[in-house]
Amino acid sequence: MKLLEDRIIRDGKIFEGDVLKVDSFVNHQIDVNFISELGKEFKRLYEGSEINKILTIEASGIGIACLVAMHFNVPVVFAKKSKSINISADVYTSKVVSYTHKREYDVIVSKEFLSKGDKVLIIDDFLAQGSALKALVDLVNQSGAEAVGAGIIIEKAYQQGGEIVRNELGLRVESLARIASMSVEDGIKFC
Amino acid sequence: MKLLEDRIIRDGKIFEGDVLKVDSFVNHQIDVNFISELGKEFKRLYEGSEINKILTIEASGIGIACLVAMHFNVPVVFAKKSKSINISADVYTSKVVSYTHKREYDVIVSKEFLSKGDKVLIIDDFLAQGSALKALVDLVNQSGAEAVGAGIIIEKAYQQGGEIVRNELGLRVESLARIASMSVEDGIKFC
Repeated sequence: MKLLEDRIIRDGKIFEGDVLKVDSFVNHQIDVNFISELGKEFKRLYEGSEINKILTIEASGIGIACLVAMHFNVPVVFAKKSKSINISADVYTSKVVSYTHKREYDVIVSKEFLSKGDKVLIIDDFLAQGSALKALVDLVNQSGAEAVGAGIIIEKAYQQGGEIVRNELGLRVESLARIASMSVEDGIKFC
Repeated sequence: MKLLEDRIIRDGKIFEGDVLKVDSFVNHQIDVNFISELGKEFKRLYEGSEINKILTIEASGIGIACLVAMHFNVPVVFAKKSKSINISADVYTSKVVSYTHKREYDVIVSKEFLSKGDKVLIIDDFLAQGSALKALVDLVNQSGAEAVGAGIIIEKAYQQGGEIVRNELGLRVESLARIASMSVEDGIKFC
């Protein structure tokens, strides 16, 4: 999506260690009108699919998912990263390895909010190693719901996550910007 | 706001320990159309105020803030709960005591995203002891920006946070539902 690629080139910041910061419009400050435009594009891509719920993961997925969900007219459920005393014990659980934060953590979704019959679109900001996305698919599968597909803002296509999720899990994944290569020296090249 | 009070009565769940769960439409599953209606109400309440940024705190504030921000046509900035390696050292920091999770933590906002001249509306889901709201006001003050007011979905008016923030900090606080009392036996009474 050219609109997004141009914005990443303009406002994204590349750091050593394979870090792309899009903090000024996606991850810390959120340009809601811009993200809503991306939501319109996800709606176009998934036109005709029956989707009745959007699933994402805290924290940076939540705002994006809500802005996307307005176009689908469906509720958002977000997987939580750790067990809060306000969450019932009746949850689905999966495990995520965060390469960015160098740790492993559990994600949970209350059984109340994902069930057989739900047709779920998974939304997230980044797809790299695919750990978060695999965990979200796992939560959907545990519940008996159907994962219709995923909508990703930025895919690091030179990493293996996208291929694993598309080929091994057979999930439809639509990424609005697919990065072929990225380095501090040479900048970003899109697929 | 009657729409919200009715929804809290219908879908809110009260637990021992002063816990009100609104997980089915605010905190875990998000009814985006409903929250967008609340956003419209905040826009009405703050009509005429010059607001150019909405500030909230992760995680459960983010979705709400984004849906509210669409009505104000301004970006959202969310304070992050712990230092990530993706965040520059150049941040404002404050401290929050979470009574729900029984712990203290730092919240940070990158100096890039709050500055002198910004007129900030603070959005959050709950106001009880006021610790998160005070920290958000502190972040705004550190940056030299102006806190125009706060928009809260549910205020536990029988706790002291609202009074402290209104009287001691002099902040305008608009809460769409103000709970006068709450117990498992007697349910919820609004102010």
